[in-house]
Amino acid sequence: MKILAFAASLRKGSFNRKLITQAIEVLKEAPGVEIDHADYREFEMPIYDGDVEENSGIPKGGQELIRRIQAVDALVISTPEYNGGIPGTLKNAIDWASRTDPIPFDGKPLLLIGASPGGFGAVRSLWHTRVPFEVMGAFVYPEMFGLARAHQSFDEQGKFVDPKNRARLQELIQSYLAFAERLKVR
Amino acid sequence: MKILAFAASLRKGSFNRKLITQAIEVLKEAPGVEIDHADYREFEMPIYDGDVEENSGIPKGGQELIRRIQAVDALVISTPEYNGGIPGTLKNAIDWASRTDPIPFDGKPLLLIGASPGGFGAVRSLWHTRVPFEVMGAFVYPEMFGLARAHQSFDEQGKFVDPKNRARLQELIQSYLAFAERLKVR
Amino acid sequence: MKILAFAASLRKGSFNRKLITQAIEVLKEAPGVEIDHADYREFEMPIYDGDVEENSGIPKGGQELIRRIQAVDALVISTPEYNGGIPGTLKNAIDWASRTDPIPFDGKPLLLIGASPGGFGAVRSLWHTRVPFEVMGAFVYPEMFGLARAHQSFDEQGKFVDPKNRARLQELIQSYLAFAERLKVR
Amino acid sequence: MKILAFAASLRKGSFNRKLITQAIEVLKEAPGVEIDHADYREFEMPIYDGDVEENSGIPKGGQELIRRIQAVDALVISTPEYNGGIPGTLKNAIDWASRTDPIPFDGKPLLLIGASPGGFGAVRSLWHTRVPFEVMGAFVYPEMFGLARAHQSFDEQGKFVDPKNRARLQELIQSYLAFAERLKVR
Repeated sequence: MKILAFAASLRKGSFNRKLITQAIEVLKEAPGVEIDHADYREFEMPIYDGDVEENSGIPKGGQELIRRIQAVDALVISTPEYNGGIPGTLKNAIDWASRTDPIPFDGKPLLLIGASPGGFGAVRSLWHTRVPFEVMGAFVYPEMFGLARAHQSFDEQGKFVDPKNRARLQELIQSYLAFAERLKVR
Repeated sequence: MKILAFAASLRKGSFNRKLITQAIEVLKEAPGVEIDHADYREFEMPIYDGDVEENSGIPKGGQELIRRIQAVDALVISTPEYNGGIPGTLKNAIDWASRTDPIPFDGKPLLLIGASPGGFGAVRSLWHTRVPFEVMGAFVYPEMFGLARAHQSFDEQGKFVDPKNRARLQELIQSYLAFAERLKVR
Repeated sequence: MKILAFAASLRKGSFNRKLITQAIEVLKEAPGVEIDHADYREFEMPIYDGDVEENSGIPKGGQELIRRIQAVDALVISTPEYNGGIPGTLKNAIDWASRTDPIPFDGKPLLLIGASPGGFGAVRSLWHTRVPFEVMGAFVYPEMFGLARAHQSFDEQGKFVDPKNRARLQELIQSYLAFAERLKVR
Repeated sequence: MKILAFAASLRKGSFNRKLITQAIEVLKEAPGVEIDHADYREFEMPIYDGDVEENSGIPKGGQELIRRIQAVDALVISTPEYNGGIPGTLKNAIDWASRTDPIPFDGKPLLLIGASPGGFGAVRSLWHTRVPFEVMGAFVYPEMFGLARAHQSFDEQGKFVDPKNRARLQELIQSYLAFAERLKVR
């Protein structure tokens, strides 16, 4: 099974980059899993503007995102929480990617995870982030993974300080892979 | 009372530009109301990136948005619905504007309205769009105004085809102004 | 595949009873589908009270709901919208049913549909109703079916007046069955 | 200013009963505040059923809730989180109370607080609980108070173990009272 995995953050030191890297380590332990680990900068694109779309179509970064989604069976996205919701940058990427037909997220299994320095571990954001993906037809896995106090959760090598976090992520990813395996288009 | 009003859409022919123009017409009928009608292009800004922020601070468009909010007592925003939620462009503007202290939306009354070509009149988007504003401390008016089938709702002069829509908007704006008047910082 | 189907309404003339009856007609056209059409009154139960639970356990109606969910592979629930959200009666049934271990909804495919006399077809309710089911681990199908102006949508035999509604429901149920088939525990 | 305060829990040892008691202690420190501290059992009522309503009207517990809301200027409600959302019991009370005209919550300032034994402090529930109140026209204060790990947060006298929780609640209640004072019908 091919999986596209990325953190929806442009910032280099982003906690969500660390979290997706940990998730990918776990994903790779599963037999038959092939990961496309994207750097979010590969999907850099301007703010959505209907006039720009009409004149020049979907920008390069958006096309790249669409192409990469189309090439996989499933997705894992790690997203920060900004002001209690989905980051503008991720929603903007979704808005552009949804302008192609069929919508590339339609029918794709998706696991959402998120890290935040606060005490709630991006939990509000994760529940809001599900919505546009579900509107587009993605099969968002019911359980999600929120990492609270992210600034204290990784060591210098970017590994989880607390082994319970790794165990929790392993268990979740295992169930998610079983879900994705069943839903993937054969 | 000074009110900042804008449509969260870059597109020139946007239904939300038409809707905010209608709302402003109604707002101006109230005594003592002074409108700052912003064109969303004045707030054009790049995608939020923590590294860019650290190196060069909040971009011009974001600073302009902050300055314009700080100068008013209340806000009216008309927003499209993209994929069942807040447009990435509006969330991105919020994300940048929230990076100043105090957060400019904190304690400001806000009326949310929205137009969409679909049958639900941006109702899903409006309910999701409330959340980040409330997280930032804005007093979002409970009632909102969703205009369904927006492509059939305006005439060539941009006026409502159906006088019921104008009456509905007038009633809502009147109650909103009473709410905003009570909450404004004197 | 065995499917439990019910309308989350006690009222005899309920639009959601009509809608679930239409959905069941469509479900039965699919080969291999066996329907348990429950009357919501079979699940009548008191308001959740932790002290009652401690003293006398889960009430009969709650136990019946749990037993019926455990016996099937998938669910279809038709729910009204009360005050923009999930009806208290449905949330209360969920609250009781979640007090058994394992939670019976966990890992069950679920299709949510809803009818309302308003213009938005229970769309706000449906999106809020997903959340507790997803929290409990149900695989809620991304697409849902909202029937607006329900009081004008059924004829005297309880059939859809507009054949487009039946076609729309047929298409949705077909995709849902494919989804449920893949996810059902074999 | 008269304020109705209650915990939306029937259970005697409920953490939310403890939390509302702490909130009331703080509320009473403010000059001119008069509290109606209701026991949720006073509002005991059956599950909403449109047929029951048609035959016998709103039940006693619902009428009592309506009467008590009508008699005050503002509300403070402490609510548990059940399965990531509003408890069925609170939604059911809302559903019954909304069946009178005008809806008693319309135009009333409301502060939502909540305690939960989990790590997220009812934060998901609080954000979903806002929605039906806002749909009914209540002025729900943007900030809320979520108490995580509630089972470890109160001493034997029911006081906060950690003085920071009291300080945080004091600050919130002070701002809420200023908000409610401005919005109350004079």
